Amino acid sequence: MGLIEYSDASPEVRAIYDDIMATRGTDWINNFWKALAHDPVTLRRTWESIKQIMGPGALDPLVKEMIYVAVSTTNQCGYCIASHTAAARKAGMTDAMFAEVMAVVGMANETNRLASGYQVEIDERFLSGA
Amino acid sequence: MGLIEYSDASPEVRAIYDDIMATRGTDWINNFWKALAHDPVTLRRTWESIKQIMGPGALDPLVKEMIYVAVSTTNQCGYCIASHTAAARKAGMTDAMFAEVMAVVGMANETNRLASGYQVEIDERFLSGA
Amino acid sequence: MGLIEYSDASPEVRAIYDDIMATRGTDWINNFWKALAHDPVTLRRTWESIKQIMGPGALDPLVKEMIYVAVSTTNQCGYCIASHTAAARKAGMTDAMFAEVMAVVGMANETNRLASGYQVEIDERFLSGA
Amino acid sequence: MGLIEYSDASPEVRAIYDDIMATRGTDWINNFWKALAHDPVTLRRTWESIKQIMGPGALDPLVKEMIYVAVSTTNQCGYCIASHTAAARKAGMTDAMFAEVMAVVGMANETNRLASGYQVEIDERFLSGA
Amino acid sequence: MGLIEYSDASPEVRAIYDDIMATRGTDWINNFWKALAHDPVTLRRTWESIKQIMGPGALDPLVKEMIYVAVSTTNQCGYCIASHTAAARKAGMTDAMFAEVMAVVGMANETNRLASGYQVEIDERFLSGA
Amino acid sequence: MGLIEYSDASPEVRAIYDDIMATRGTDWINNFWKALAHDPVTLRRTWESIKQIMGPGALDPLVKEMIYVAVSTTNQCGYCIASHTAAARKAGMTDAMFAEVMAVVGMANETNRLASGYQVEIDERFLSGA
Repeated sequence: MGLIEYSDASPEVRAIYDDIMATRGTDWINNFWKALAHDPVTLRRTWESIKQIMGPGALDPLVKEMIYVAVSTTNQCGYCIASHTAAARKAGMTDAMFAEVMAVVGMANETNRLASGYQVEIDERFLSGA
Repeated sequence: MGLIEYSDASPEVRAIYDDIMATRGTDWINNFWKALAHDPVTLRRTWESIKQIMGPGALDPLVKEMIYVAVSTTNQCGYCIASHTAAARKAGMTDAMFAEVMAVVGMANETNRLASGYQVEIDERFLSGA
Repeated sequence: MGLIEYSDASPEVRAIYDDIMATRGTDWINNFWKALAHDPVTLRRTWESIKQIMGPGALDPLVKEMIYVAVSTTNQCGYCIASHTAAARKAGMTDAMFAEVMAVVGMANETNRLASGYQVEIDERFLSGA
Repeated sequence: MGLIEYSDASPEVRAIYDDIMATRGTDWINNFWKALAHDPVTLRRTWESIKQIMGPGALDPLVKEMIYVAVSTTNQCGYCIASHTAAARKAGMTDAMFAEVMAVVGMANETNRLASGYQVEIDERFLSGA
Repeated sequence: MGLIEYSDASPEVRAIYDDIMATRGTDWINNFWKALAHDPVTLRRTWESIKQIMGPGALDPLVKEMIYVAVSTTNQCGYCIASHTAAARKAGMTDAMFAEVMAVVGMANETNRLASGYQVEIDERFLSGA
Repeated sequence: MGLIEYSDASPEVRAIYDDIMATRGTDWINNFWKALAHDPVTLRRTWESIKQIMGPGALDPLVKEMIYVAVSTTNQCGYCIASHTAAARKAGMTDAMFAEVMAVVGMANETNRLASGYQVEIDERFLSGA
């Protein structure tokens, strides 16, 4: 379906593009948003949700970006790994931190299968505390 | 295959159980390890890896546990969600922090599919910086 | 392993290619079948199953193609997204319909993780009605 | 973390519960929302998104529910399969339609792996039309 | 939807049940087939496919069952892990073999994510040989 | 992050590269290890684990490689499918064996969803024998 550039965008889409750039302090829009722009309702809803979730809260912004990288890596989404690794680096992720995220992600994906394959029942203590 | 309790474990397995309890400062072993004990080689390797990865490093221990929760939730592994949510809480995760982890995980799983479904190409800027 | 073109195919494979083209009312074979042709038994079984499942039934052919797109997007299978989005468009999927499929797929992948991460128990009403 | 019942909910959460019941024409709230109520911001955002996405649009409401079932089945999310199968039945899904959804989901999950495992390249025709 | 027992099954379904029992040399039908029996067409197609795929071929029957366990464990499908672990044991899988399957599955799930997260490009040698 | 070639590697990394080549009886290192070399601790741990798991044991090396292919195909990890299909071929996998692996992987991914979607309960016999 192609990408909708700023110059070709409707005023409604331009307003969202402007908000993305202002919120992120950048002067460009990455392809994800240019693709979603074919559906302005989803573009707006997705951006508003991302802005709310990734904004100030109980967790550090860098931690949230690293969680985003962890999920994208688990799902093996090429675009998402590339874009959120870039975002995490911009938020302060060092090479050593990236390496640890990968190590945890790899190990979690391994132990998730071991727990399932051995059909391990949840401990009483976890259930009461959950 | 059942669970191997401490009292029924071989000296080799007991030594690993002892190290798990000493490292974690607890007096019990959760079911995951009691199931893996049927294969002492995997038990040892998995524990040594977990101990190394979850130990001191570039990331805060709490951050690592939250990443573990994020991956386990993405994989929808019931045992792993229960055990690592408990571990994250013990490491200091508050209700507000847990809620934000869930919000980011949910959003990442949504946008991963939007990026794939719209067949979004990776931006040049992400490739050069990756 | 490469692709097996019609001109290089055995009579057995050609017969299946012919049936694919006749059933679909097209004059070409897409790469998926040319790859499966290395294993004529799987080629035949897969085609017969697809023909049966995607043929006339309780659901509209377009609905079935959109479900195929939804699953392929969830699995993030690049080839499958491309081929079944094309098939769905041929069956009548408009841009607006595609956008809604994506919105539902994204939301379902989000709430699937929220339901798992919050460890939500299935409501009695759903169990009795299931 | 348990479930937040209507009688124990804050006015903010009650307002969302009221809107869910009014929109759906029911007099009860399923557990998913009672669990999300621990995080009113996510509760509101998720409900507003669901209401928008599942409301009137280019696709029939039943089609959307069946796509939801298809994604939840692909992800093997027990809660989501149970709740959205119930919702789809309420929206008119017959046994025969459910059976066809399952057949398509199963087949799509099979062919997704065949396409990946055989490393099938995307056909030119699909790329130009995507 | 419940399970369809032999005594309640139609002649068409009974014939398939009979073939399952005869092929497997058992006198009972596991729940998977009793659930699929609500859709006799899918029941027949799935059974015919399973019978063909799991029958004599280039791979040992035990190897095929272990691959089935490996996939089911990766997907974390509780029913499938239980049923195919039982089938693999019946086909000769020892405790040591099961433990190795689990170890390989866990490691593969780990390295799959490391390869994706580090965005590793496929080596030329693998492409030419693929 | 790029790949770390042998000539640019630290003595610690070179020692691991040497062990990989010696163990595998080859004179080259594939990209996966060159990418992991950015994190020597993970490089060492992953290689030691792979060497242990894929080494002599209760299962034939070829069987283990085919299980690796099966998991990688289920996860749809492009790099992993390419590298482990090559490894399996080197270990003796014929075209017919590859075709059967694919057939089993496809079928398992289909029935995994059918079992989940139909919400099939685990048979008593499987639980007692698990």
